[in-house]
This record gives sequence, C-alpha cells and structure tokens, in this order.
Amino acid sequence: MIFPASQIALIVSGKIEGDPNATVGSFGKIEEAKEGQLSFLANPKYEDYLYTTRASVIIISEAYELKQPVQTTLIRVPDAYSAFATLLSKYQEIMQQQMTGVQEPSYIAKTASYGQQVFIGAFAYLGENVKIGNNTKIYPQVYIGNNVVIGENCIIHPGVKIYHDCQVGNSVTIHSGTVIGSDGFGFAPQPDGSFKKVPQIGNVILEDQVEVGSNTTIDRATIGSTIIRKGAKLDNLIQIAHNVEIGNSSVIAAQAGVSGSTKIGKGVMIGGQAGIVGHIQLGDGSKVNAQSGVSKSIDAGKAVTGSPAYDYTSALRSQAVSRKLPDLEKRVKELEQLLKQLLTETR
Amino acid sequence: MIFPASQIALIVSGKIEGDPNATVGSFGKIEEAKEGQLSFLANPKYEDYLYTTRASVIIISEAYELKQPVQTTLIRVPDAYSAFATLLSKYQEIMQQQMTGVQEPSYIAKTASYGQQVFIGAFAYLGENVKIGNNTKIYPQVYIGNNVVIGENCIIHPGVKIYHDCQVGNSVTIHSGTVIGSDGFGFAPQPDGSFKKVPQIGNVILEDQVEVGSNTTIDRATIGSTIIRKGAKLDNLIQIAHNVEIGNSSVIAAQAGVSGSTKIGKGVMIGGQAGIVGHIQLGDGSKVNAQSGVSKSIDAGKAVTGSPAYDYTSALRSQAVSRKLPDLEKRVKELEQLLKQLLTETR
Amino acid sequence: MIFPASQIALIVSGKIEGDPNATVGSFGKIEEAKEGQLSFLANPKYEDYLYTTRASVIIISEAYELKQPVQTTLIRVPDAYSAFATLLSKYQEIMQQQMTGVQEPSYIAKTASYGQQVFIGAFAYLGENVKIGNNTKIYPQVYIGNNVVIGENCIIHPGVKIYHDCQVGNSVTIHSGTVIGSDGFGFAPQPDGSFKKVPQIGNVILEDQVEVGSNTTIDRATIGSTIIRKGAKLDNLIQIAHNVEIGNSSVIAAQAGVSGSTKIGKGVMIGGQAGIVGHIQLGDGSKVNAQSGVSKSIDAGKAVTGSPAYDYTSALRSQAVSRKLPDLEKRVKELEQLLKQLLTETR
Repeated sequence: MIFPASQIALIVSGKIEGDPNATVGSFGKIEEAKEGQLSFLANPKYEDYLYTTRASVIIISEAYELKQPVQTTLIRVPDAYSAFATLLSKYQEIMQQQMTGVQEPSYIAKTASYGQQVFIGAFAYLGENVKIGNNTKIYPQVYIGNNVVIGENCIIHPGVKIYHDCQVGNSVTIHSGTVIGSDGFGFAPQPDGSFKKVPQIGNVILEDQVEVGSNTTIDRATIGSTIIRKGAKLDNLIQIAHNVEIGNSSVIAAQAGVSGSTKIGKGVMIGGQAGIVGHIQLGDGSKVNAQSGVSKSIDAGKAVTGSPAYDYTSALRSQAVSRKLPDLEKRVKELEQLLKQLLTETR
Repeated sequence: MIFPASQIALIVSGKIEGDPNATVGSFGKIEEAKEGQLSFLANPKYEDYLYTTRASVIIISEAYELKQPVQTTLIRVPDAYSAFATLLSKYQEIMQQQMTGVQEPSYIAKTASYGQQVFIGAFAYLGENVKIGNNTKIYPQVYIGNNVVIGENCIIHPGVKIYHDCQVGNSVTIHSGTVIGSDGFGFAPQPDGSFKKVPQIGNVILEDQVEVGSNTTIDRATIGSTIIRKGAKLDNLIQIAHNVEIGNSSVIAAQAGVSGSTKIGKGVMIGGQAGIVGHIQLGDGSKVNAQSGVSKSIDAGKAVTGSPAYDYTSALRSQAVSRKLPDLEKRVKELEQLLKQLLTETR
Repeated sequence: MIFPASQIALIVSGKIEGDPNATVGSFGKIEEAKEGQLSFLANPKYEDYLYTTRASVIIISEAYELKQPVQTTLIRVPDAYSAFATLLSKYQEIMQQQMTGVQEPSYIAKTASYGQQVFIGAFAYLGENVKIGNNTKIYPQVYIGNNVVIGENCIIHPGVKIYHDCQVGNSVTIHSGTVIGSDGFGFAPQPDGSFKKVPQIGNVILEDQVEVGSNTTIDRATIGSTIIRKGAKLDNLIQIAHNVEIGNSSVIAAQAGVSGSTKIGKGVMIGGQAGIVGHIQLGDGSKVNAQSGVSKSIDAGKAVTGSPAYDYTSALRSQAVSRKLPDLEKRVKELEQLLKQLLTETR
C-alpha cells in the first residue's frame, strides 16, 4: 500500500512542510531509510541524518528548528515518536484486518464455530466446540483443543498450541510456539521410588489484552484455573506453572519462571531469568530483579534481588562487599596476627 | 459423559450418603463447583464450603463428622484425595481410549505402520519405517522422523517433533512443542576462528513411563544415545544436551539444563533453572536446589545449592552471613581502628 | 545405503588392512557397534574394544600397532577421528541431497518461488513472495511468512516458524521449534498503569553459516534488524531480544539470554543460562561464564563470571572466600572479644 504525505499528516494530525504528494510504502530508520520510506526524528543524537536521509517523508517535532534546507517532506507534530508509533499501530491494524477467510487445508470440527472477519490459516486445527470471536486471526499450524473459547480481535501466531478447555479473552496476542494448557508438573512419590501422575484437570484463562511471547509455556491448573489477568505481558520462553495467578498489567521478562500456586499481584515487574518458588505471594507493584531467586513472599511495592533474593538496596551493598572478600579475609588475618603479637607483648 | 453417584461409589469403593441417583458430568473445586459437578473435601481448611457448595456429589473421608445437614450427595471413603485422584485418572484414561482413528489430512509414509486403537491427528507426519504401538495417541501437527519407534499407550501431544532414529518406550507422555533428537551442540574450532560442525549421528532413547513437559529439548547423541531412563519426569523448557543419561525415576523441574555427557543417577531431584556442567556424575538420590550451578560431580544422597553449587547446609550458612557482609566489613574496620589506637597507647 | 570398505578408504584417503569387500550401512561406537557398522578408534582408552568389537570396518590411526590379530577390516589414516567426522559429514550431505521434491499437502502461495533440488515437506507453509534458494530443505510443518528470503543449502527443520520479512543467508541450519522474528517485547507504560504495545516493524537477519538450535527465540527489531552474523552458532532455548547483534563466529550455549539492543562482538563465547542486559557491548573475543548475569559492557578479550558478573579471576577468588564466610564471621567475633578483654586488662 502506498500513502501520500497528505494522508499521513491527516492520521497523525500533523502539518506538512514540503511536497504533500510525496508517497511512502514502508518504514525505515532515519539513518538507513530509502526512497519511498517514512521515518521519524525523535532523538537529537540522530539529527545529522535529517540532512542526508533518503526517506521520502519524516515525522518531526514542531519545536525542531532546521539548521539547513532538507530534501524530504516533513510532517510536524507535537511528539514525533508517539505519532510514529500511532502510525505503525494503525498500519498493522489495517494489515491484520485485511487478512480474512479460511485457507485450505485446515481442520475445523463440525461443532466448532467462528465469527465475522476471522482468518484461519492452512494446517490450523479447531477441535470440537471451539468458539472463535469476530476479527480474530488464527495463523497456520495453530492447534486449538476441544471446548476452547477465544474472544474477539485476537492474534494467534503460527504454531501456537492451546489445549482443551482453555479460555482466551479479547484482544489477546500469543506468539509462535507458545503452549497454553499443558499438564502441570504433578507426580506423587510412591513407596518404590517411582512417581504416579496427578491428573491435571483444570484449565488456563488468559484475560483481555494479555500478550504472550514465543515458546512460553503456561500449564493448566490441577483443579481450577491458571489465570493471567487483564493486560499482563509475558515475554519469550517463560514458564508459568499450574494454578499460578498473574495480576493485571504485570510484566514478566524472558526466561523467567513462576512455580505452582504462586499469586502475583497487579503491576508487578519480574526481570529476565528470575525464578519464583511455589505457594507464595508477590504484592502489587513489587519488583524482582533479573536472575533473582525468590523464595519468600514479597510485600507490595518492595524490590528484591539476588538468589536467594532479598531487599534490593541491602543486597546491592552485600554484593559490593562480596567483591572485596579476599581483601576482607586478608584484613582479618592481619588483625589476628597483630593481636596475637600484642597479647604476647602485653601479657 | 454423565455418571450417577452409585457408579462412582462403585469405582472408588465408597459408601453413599444421600441420593444415589445424583449425576455428575465434570469436576470442580469445592469452593467453585456447580450443579452437575463432582468435588472432594480433603483439606479441613475448606470444610465450610461443604455446607454451601453447589457440587452434586462430594467425595469425603469416612472419619469426617458433619456439623449440619448437607444438600449434596456424599461418598465416604478412607482417603478422599486419593479416591478423587483415582477417579480422575480413570476418567482421563477412558477419554483417551475413546480417541481412535486417523484424521485427514495426515501424512503417513508407505513404510510406516501402527497398531490397534491408535489415534493419528490431522497434519501429523509419520516418516519412513515409523512404528507406532497399540493404543498410542499421536495428536495433530506432530512430526515423527524416519525409523522412529514408539511403544504402546503413549500420548504425543500436538506439535511434538521427534527426529529420525529416536526410540520411545511404552506409556510415555510428551507435551506440546517438545523436540526430541535435534542435533547436539558440537562445533570444532578452526584455525581461522570459524567453527566446523561435528555431525551428530546418535539418537535419543526415552524409556517406559517417561513424561516430558512442553517446549523441552533433548538433543541426540554425537554417537550412541542420549537416554532418559524408566519413569524419569521432566518439566517444561528443559535442555538435555547430547549423550546425557538421566536415571530411573529422576525428576527435573522447569528451565533446568544438563550439559553434554553428564550422567545423572536414579531418584535424583533437580530444581528449576538449575544448570549442570558437562562430563560429570550426579549420584543416586542426590538433590540439586533451584538455580544452582553444578560444576563438579555429586556423591549419592548429597544435596547442593548455590552457583557454583556446594554442600546444601554449608551454603545456606554462607548465604546467611553474606547478607550481613556490610556489617561484617564495618566490624573489621572498627577492629582495625581500635587495634591501631591500642598499639599507639601500649607501645 | 551400503558401502564397501574400498569405497570408504577412497573417500578418506586411507589404506585397507583386511577384506576390502566388507560392507557397512551405518555407524556405531566401537564398544556397541554391530555387524554391518563402521566405527573408529581414536581414544586409547577404548583400545581393548578393537579386539572384541563386532563392527565390520574400523577407521584407525596409521601409527597404532596391533597387539593381536583382529576380525574386522581396518582403514588406516593419519587422524582417525577427523577422518570419521569427514565421513559422517559426507554421509549426511548425501542423505540431504537425496531429499528433493514437494510433499503434499503443503501450502505454497502463488507468488512464492524456489530453486533447484529443493525439498518442501508436508504441511509446510510458504507465504506471499517467499524465495527459497537452490538445494535448501524445508522440513514438514515449517512456517515461512510473507516476503521471507532463504538462501541456498539451508536446512530448516520441522516446525520452525519464520515471521514475515526476515532474511536467511546460505548454508544456515535452524532446528525444530525455533521462532525467528516474533515481536520484540516493547510496551509503553500508560498513566493508568496499563501498557500500550510498541509496534515491532523491523526484521531478523541470519547471515551465512549460522546454526540455531531447537526452541530458541530470536525477536524482530523494533525498527531495523536483529542480526546474527556469519558463522555464529546458537544452542537450544536461547532468547535473543529485539535489535540485538551477534558477531561473526560467536557461540552461545543453551538457555542463555541477550536483552534488547545489546551488541555482541566477534568470537565471543557465552555460557549456558547466562543473561546479558540490554544496551551494552561485549567486545570481540570476550567470554561469559555459565549462569553469569552481565550488567555492564565487557572489553575485548575479557572473561567474566558471577551474577552480577565481573572479572573472572577476581570473582573466583571471592567465591572461594564466600564459602568460608561463617568461619570468617566467627574469627571476627573472636577478635572482638579478645580485643574487648585486652582493653579491660590494659586500660
């Protein structure tokens, strides 16, 4: 699709400087953009590129004063980055909306149903009683088990697997390779040292506006539900165990793991590769630093780091001293010798 | 499927109190259950729900004394949780057994063969000379490479990939997205700084009753076999490198990793996000705490923690002191000053 | 395929001792090999097996002196392991080359195109404008999004997902379940505590001779490209965030993670489960130990360990002292008491 600068200015409520008929068909960084591309200047560090860029249209701050004439068409807005992001979102939305229909071959059980403007890609599988809401896009090679319900405006990327009985809200995005609803890790030890599987008959609920990255795993509850609440965002390769609950708008970075039955509050931030043990609570707004190992509940608003994790500021101080440990040991040794000598002298 | 209380009582050898014709069709937690659901009361903490639950049938201990009359039908058994788990297992077994036949489109090589009561889902791929045992269920979108042999009563969940020449025993369960038999990470450094691939021509063997979680990776051996022995249980997102051996009934939690050629004994327990270096041995019954980094062999029965990991009890003591490091440093400084002063005074 | 010893000797430029017509059809370890298998003896530790092995042909060093007569046919070469590896590579190459054609059902968009000697497996998906080079093998259930370009001699294993607009060079291997080009983790915090997605419109570029293990995730850039440079090797379950760059011939072990916009130089080695924060640089030839947490840039050639990571040698010393912390604390306490006593005596 090709857009003239005039139309773009309309979308971002901007003012054109230069040729309103300049056209663009894709996006580029200001330092790399080619003719026919749209770019933006937000960071002053990149200012010099404004005068050399080959981009056809640049979104730029109203406040910016040109140092010399430019070749490219400018669109003036109050906040260049924000306007650019709005434009990108609009563009992606349009692209998604255009994608409709059912590609063949796909497998849709007779009892499955779906709404308007839905896309179902080739090799996708919809089990019995599956329900798909309006405008949701199911990419190729996705598996949706029996009785799964998916809301409106969702994007389920290629190869996602959703086990039976799970529920997905509206405006949910799930990236490739992610598994929703696999069995929780529950095995009862037997007298002979072997393990007997504890059946996992619960499900997973993803509420509205949840986004899950690629190759993440969210296990179904033993009984009841593993729940990811509204607006929570999960990165790639994360492990969410059975019966976990993640609160509204909490954010979890890549490769972190949350063990069984742990409840995570609202607005919690968990860093990459952090691990949280089972059966604890993380209070609203608490923060867990990357690679931390959290073994106890955390109060609302508190930050922790380290493995095992404790209060962020105290832990940083201990880490600083731990680097001087060989020196500290030497000082203790010197004290011991000095004192021994002193004792010999004085007694 | 709908079952009357009388039939359930028969399966769990329980005694009915109330209406033997009450029927249930699914399971629920006692605090959330709806009419037509079966639940149980094992934990006294949930006792109050017994009098308010909408569940139609409750499995409950023989010993429990009612505080007031209940609406629901009770089934009395010696151990309520155990009876409930038995029921769930039976139910899942029945559901699995009902799933048979070959869905279309699927790809089954002419030289592939399979036994009785097998299910092969749509978009599943069976390569040349593949053999599938009786009653095994191959879910949609599974890939089974050439010459792979899979035993009886296995469940291979959607999207699992098993590379050529691997072997899977009986009663093995593999969850979605898991990859069995990808190449081990072997590259020989070259004089120019580049790397030359070392061909990986071994395979992976999963013995009977192994269960593997979702999105786990088990690499094929360089030569010979990577082996997961009988009854071992692996969680999600685990990395098992080439030529590793995991002993009988060992248990590995999510996101742990085992490097090349390491041998893990029987009944070993490895915590989440733990890492084990290559070419070492973990003795039978040894334990590795979550997030530990094991760089040396561990004797049978020993427990370790930390990164690098060492004796569990010693490490916990060191961790406790490490939190007081800023204080310890301060105390050393005070000692130094005091001693310096004392030396000035006494000499 | 069956090869006589004479033909194998020709390939590795070796000299036959024994029956040149002995035939082999597969490979085995010297201690496990069966009749009809080819093996090698490189490690003197395995010498005894030479006299008991059932392998039909053994590749062995020119220098090795037999202690007694052997049953098997020997092929003498200067370096037995290297000759064996060459043979394996050749064998795998032949096997790959034989695999050509398009299996049905597959989905190939009308605007997609591919070269000579290409293999496209069943249930593979090629989007609009996809281009596949000569001799590249696309295994079953692979997804290739719109506008993706893949070079020659690549192997894309079953179930790999490559999102739209990504670029893959020549001789690239990607293992099962790996996701290339999923959205970077970018969300702008809103005043109400929720998060607004930052569109991710860049792509991923894998240069020539890159190999990526199974279930690894490489996110597309926000704008521009996430780049894995020539000859870099990535293991399984690795997270590469948006706008990261990995230099030529760098090697990353399993379960490591690299956060957004970090630049990793040439010939860098990153251990398993290590984590690297965003927006830093790792100099050429630097080394990161397993499980380290790197929070600052590293100079070329430097090695680090620990979480947070610092100089390798210093960190090892601190780790050694940290194990003696309870003892050190005790020594400080004794010093305090001794000094207190001394002060009482002398003052």
